[in-house]
Amino acid sequence: MHTYQLHRGRGLEGLERITLTRRPLQPHEVRLRVHAASLNYRDLILARGGSPERPPLVPLSDGAGEVLEAGRAVTAVAPGDRVTAAFYPDWLDGPPTVAGTALGLGGGGAGWLTQELVMPGQALIKLPAHFSYREGATLTCAGTAAWHALFEAGSLKPGSTVLLQGTGGVSLWALQLAKAAGMRVIITSSDDAKLDFARTLGADATINYRTHPEWSVEARRLSGGEGVDLVVDVGGRGTLTQSLRSVRMAGAVAVVGGVSGFGGELEPWALIDGASRLLGVLVGSRAMTERLARFAELHSIRPVIDRTFGFNQVPEAYAWLESAQHLGKVVIDTTAPLL
Amino acid sequence: MHTYQLHRGRGLEGLERITLTRRPLQPHEVRLRVHAASLNYRDLILARGGSPERPPLVPLSDGAGEVLEAGRAVTAVAPGDRVTAAFYPDWLDGPPTVAGTALGLGGGGAGWLTQELVMPGQALIKLPAHFSYREGATLTCAGTAAWHALFEAGSLKPGSTVLLQGTGGVSLWALQLAKAAGMRVIITSSDDAKLDFARTLGADATINYRTHPEWSVEARRLSGGEGVDLVVDVGGRGTLTQSLRSVRMAGAVAVVGGVSGFGGELEPWALIDGASRLLGVLVGSRAMTERLARFAELHSIRPVIDRTFGFNQVPEAYAWLESAQHLGKVVIDTTAPLL
Amino acid sequence: MHTYQLHRGRGLEGLERITLTRRPLQPHEVRLRVHAASLNYRDLILARGGSPERPPLVPLSDGAGEVLEAGRAVTAVAPGDRVTAAFYPDWLDGPPTVAGTALGLGGGGAGWLTQELVMPGQALIKLPAHFSYREGATLTCAGTAAWHALFEAGSLKPGSTVLLQGTGGVSLWALQLAKAAGMRVIITSSDDAKLDFARTLGADATINYRTHPEWSVEARRLSGGEGVDLVVDVGGRGTLTQSLRSVRMAGAVAVVGGVSGFGGELEPWALIDGASRLLGVLVGSRAMTERLARFAELHSIRPVIDRTFGFNQVPEAYAWLESAQHLGKVVIDTTAPLL
Amino acid sequence: MHTYQLHRGRGLEGLERITLTRRPLQPHEVRLRVHAASLNYRDLILARGGSPERPPLVPLSDGAGEVLEAGRAVTAVAPGDRVTAAFYPDWLDGPPTVAGTALGLGGGGAGWLTQELVMPGQALIKLPAHFSYREGATLTCAGTAAWHALFEAGSLKPGSTVLLQGTGGVSLWALQLAKAAGMRVIITSSDDAKLDFARTLGADATINYRTHPEWSVEARRLSGGEGVDLVVDVGGRGTLTQSLRSVRMAGAVAVVGGVSGFGGELEPWALIDGASRLLGVLVGSRAMTERLARFAELHSIRPVIDRTFGFNQVPEAYAWLESAQHLGKVVIDTTAPLL
Repeated sequence: MHTYQLHRGRGLEGLERITLTRRPLQPHEVRLRVHAASLNYRDLILARGGSPERPPLVPLSDGAGEVLEAGRAVTAVAPGDRVTAAFYPDWLDGPPTVAGTALGLGGGGAGWLTQELVMPGQALIKLPAHFSYREGATLTCAGTAAWHALFEAGSLKPGSTVLLQGTGGVSLWALQLAKAAGMRVIITSSDDAKLDFARTLGADATINYRTHPEWSVEARRLSGGEGVDLVVDVGGRGTLTQSLRSVRMAGAVAVVGGVSGFGGELEPWALIDGASRLLGVLVGSRAMTERLARFAELHSIRPVIDRTFGFNQVPEAYAWLESAQHLGKVVIDTTAPLL
Repeated sequence: MHTYQLHRGRGLEGLERITLTRRPLQPHEVRLRVHAASLNYRDLILARGGSPERPPLVPLSDGAGEVLEAGRAVTAVAPGDRVTAAFYPDWLDGPPTVAGTALGLGGGGAGWLTQELVMPGQALIKLPAHFSYREGATLTCAGTAAWHALFEAGSLKPGSTVLLQGTGGVSLWALQLAKAAGMRVIITSSDDAKLDFARTLGADATINYRTHPEWSVEARRLSGGEGVDLVVDVGGRGTLTQSLRSVRMAGAVAVVGGVSGFGGELEPWALIDGASRLLGVLVGSRAMTERLARFAELHSIRPVIDRTFGFNQVPEAYAWLESAQHLGKVVIDTTAPLL
Repeated sequence: MHTYQLHRGRGLEGLERITLTRRPLQPHEVRLRVHAASLNYRDLILARGGSPERPPLVPLSDGAGEVLEAGRAVTAVAPGDRVTAAFYPDWLDGPPTVAGTALGLGGGGAGWLTQELVMPGQALIKLPAHFSYREGATLTCAGTAAWHALFEAGSLKPGSTVLLQGTGGVSLWALQLAKAAGMRVIITSSDDAKLDFARTLGADATINYRTHPEWSVEARRLSGGEGVDLVVDVGGRGTLTQSLRSVRMAGAVAVVGGVSGFGGELEPWALIDGASRLLGVLVGSRAMTERLARFAELHSIRPVIDRTFGFNQVPEAYAWLESAQHLGKVVIDTTAPLL
Repeated sequence: MHTYQLHRGRGLEGLERITLTRRPLQPHEVRLRVHAASLNYRDLILARGGSPERPPLVPLSDGAGEVLEAGRAVTAVAPGDRVTAAFYPDWLDGPPTVAGTALGLGGGGAGWLTQELVMPGQALIKLPAHFSYREGATLTCAGTAAWHALFEAGSLKPGSTVLLQGTGGVSLWALQLAKAAGMRVIITSSDDAKLDFARTLGADATINYRTHPEWSVEARRLSGGEGVDLVVDVGGRGTLTQSLRSVRMAGAVAVVGGVSGFGGELEPWALIDGASRLLGVLVGSRAMTERLARFAELHSIRPVIDRTFGFNQVPEAYAWLESAQHLGKVVIDTTAPLL
């Protein structure tokens, strides 16, 4: 059985394919045959940075597979079930805790870039019936963060206006989810072609932030002068101030990512004067991923997959994500033959 | 009938005492005889800054008085009632709106530094029975903001640990409220004598931030290594980063003021990694002030009054607040004879 | 100017058309030309029952009209605006209070069955742009109650399953709202033709409660054996027990009406064992009606109107509602000539 | 090692003491030496009723003990720690689920009436430092239900008025918790001596329901005519209607128990007209019990223990509870020598 491991801080050079043997299952564990995995921006950060002294890890938080074998204490899934897993196998429900978020898949805990995987049964979630394994491999990190930001963090009412940034994994998921939930969506990008694509997915209004560097002005104009109800901020340093200026009184910014880096100025007075909120979103609980999976099934949502690489093309997959040319998720087919 | 008005941007020079004549009441209005008013940090900002072209205003958001006369559509109060008013007479309940917060007393709308006042009946709140007028003149701005930060913004459970900053109006109110509600309080100051005073009001632990400039380390140590549940941040630029480092996972910082100025760095990653929240607190609604008044009555809370000035000592009162030597509220007795 | 008034307790005999003269406006008031009004089940109850000693009232809580004249203190609307009003003009936002709900339109306060109306400006809400006046006359009572039950009372997540009862005003509104918000809807009726109609409005599953008198069994079967997330109960005595048996663990029943009368058995153990909730819904606040109006506009929802009567056919309109043959709202065109 | 087991449906005759041998621990399990257990009304119901065909069970949901041994995957507790456990070991946090509440201790799962116990590590909660084992044996069922009803179910604000019924385990816990959290408490009983005792624990007002059979009238009078914010209903059939009449508009009844039996009339109109809520409370999650334990420690709350029986006096302990003469918890010292 083949597995990748990542030696941190060495970039793509840090990826290595090794052979592992099976270990016996504990009563609460499940063995999966992995069918597909997908990459997130976080996986690039883990490859580039982090202390090289730390032990190597099996990367990727997102994947999907088939149950091969279940320990005798496992009741929720059975051999043959098609499943994915929660980002934090120990954060089941309720607010996050230090203990519950200690081991994120592909970081503190072993991830999906492998042909077989052992996972605690409580972490597993059945795939939406209409999903392929490749689509199922895109739910965990970006999908859950989008769900959490939209529907758990900010207590939005239906019909609210949401502003999304760019066409990365979180924002495309958020676009599909928000539209299926009856919200109004404004989306930003520097690329008119990507904005056109977002319109085909249901975006109600678009802003090219090269044309409108002060895009909060345009966001307010597009929301009747009041500002939007929620911004899902994935930009960090480069976007937070504009995000805060885009929300209406008593609105919120869900702080999900930092594609443009972290750090930067914040004006506390803007928070007070607008009675607004900045809400840190740390992926989400198992319960959130399960609600996401059910919602995706109910609405027949199909995640946007950009390109699928073979199991022997993993460095190429990382490089493709790094090149930022993708539109949708970058997936690895872990069942592809190793040429 | 004598009234002060403030010409903004001219500091204490901008204060002027004038004579006004009564105007008839509308059906929904109430005429009050003002007995006392109190100063907030906001009143210094309004005196120092703002555009001098704007018309002069009757300053002070906080005061208390007796109902002299009530319009025929007013049912909630009657002549003789002892009352104060909501900071925003048009923000009655629910989340804040632009329309509801357009006219804050002593800012957009006429304030309490006057011998008589006409106010819409819906804005009035009866004083706790055990309050003097002077005590009643301290509820509106600082008291409501403290209540809002503790009990409305962050959905704390009883027994939570709260960190308060300094011994200004908001923090002393928050200390008394949090203790009466069964919370644990850690308070910071640069002055050990003030920390000792805070202990007499019930503070469970204290931090001198001169001794501990990185006071979040001490705050975490004093909360079992986990961090506190809520920080009521009144410092702004000088405190926000330490505040964010002081909260536990999924905790919150209520952003209430900017005594040390606004602006400064914020690290979005800290929000994500800790799943924490920054919650802007804009004073509060009429309903919040009413809940505060009832709570103060139930627990026989007595606001801390530092010193009371006469109606002809208004500039001295402003100067005393500006000198930052006070411990508790600075009050003006509007019934004192004009010598 | 013609107005109907209702002498309670005399049924349709209690309806009388009289002539009124205009009174001058107060500064906060607005004069409307009424274009349409609609009937609710509540209007039948008021006609049949209540103490005949009470003074007559202008009936109907629901209507729409054009602003003719606005007092000088009114800023939110202007002559020519097309508006409806909140059910309780004094309940603006936040939870209900005794004072805020004392005067419901067409009950404690004057209603819409008139050619002209004076209303406090704060109670008015602009119609969705795509609405006719007749459609605008259906928002207030049934529409707001449906919105409140679905989106304010129970904190449902998107993708939840909702069970609705029958095809009266509240349930048809709830069906259209729930579908536009991405929920799954099960609806009951005794009439297969009405169930077919509900399917054309988007219902996902239907139950004929004549075929399934224990319809909670069918409701659970249709929701994967778990039960539904929310029931909007409009039946009262005849439905509450089945409603409670239909909800999943930790689910809720929004108690909105009592078409089959009130009273009946309740099994407290069912509440405990299922950790379920019964939530009384009292129409809703002005803020809720405004969110409803915006949502209806965003999703181009068109309320279902059954039949429109002229202003001289008011008793016929009441009788038609009483006959329970309608499917959708029964509307009165108050601009129709009085033959 | 000695253990009691209960054969259901045979009353006290169904209690039997047997000898068991130790079984080896799984990696996630912990072995405890039990020091004390306590009885709840539920244990009488289980002894009296239930199907005799079901296998015997080790009764009692409430107990406390010392960690003897911990499996290698257990990190949260270590040998020597003094602990109790969550009522539902699989309901960790968030809302209840069918799977999470399938096995309640002393019902679906083995309980505390034994000298040694094996429990999953995740279910354990450290005792408040100032608690004896006997006090620690009273937290789980009654304590958690009281906490849940007061602080998790109804989103009360500090200073709210709570009505409690009688002086059983849930109500005495609720009294101590509500007072420590700064609430106002009204308590009912048929016994003036018990009401006097409740006053010594902090009750603000009392109602003898023999003197006031329509005690909701008195409850409303004692809360300024408005009604109370929350009733913690433990009576069921005999109390629910009065409970609902006691709450203010938009108030709630937490439905926790049925000491007077279940079933009875409910008037749905009362729920609608008062915009009130009935909230079923099913004990609570592990996270709630943990918050309770911390709160009890912070406020040095000491649970009220009525009487302690030896391990060979178990039938006497059940009989004492059944006689309803107790005031506070009935405890069994499982370490007492077996004479």
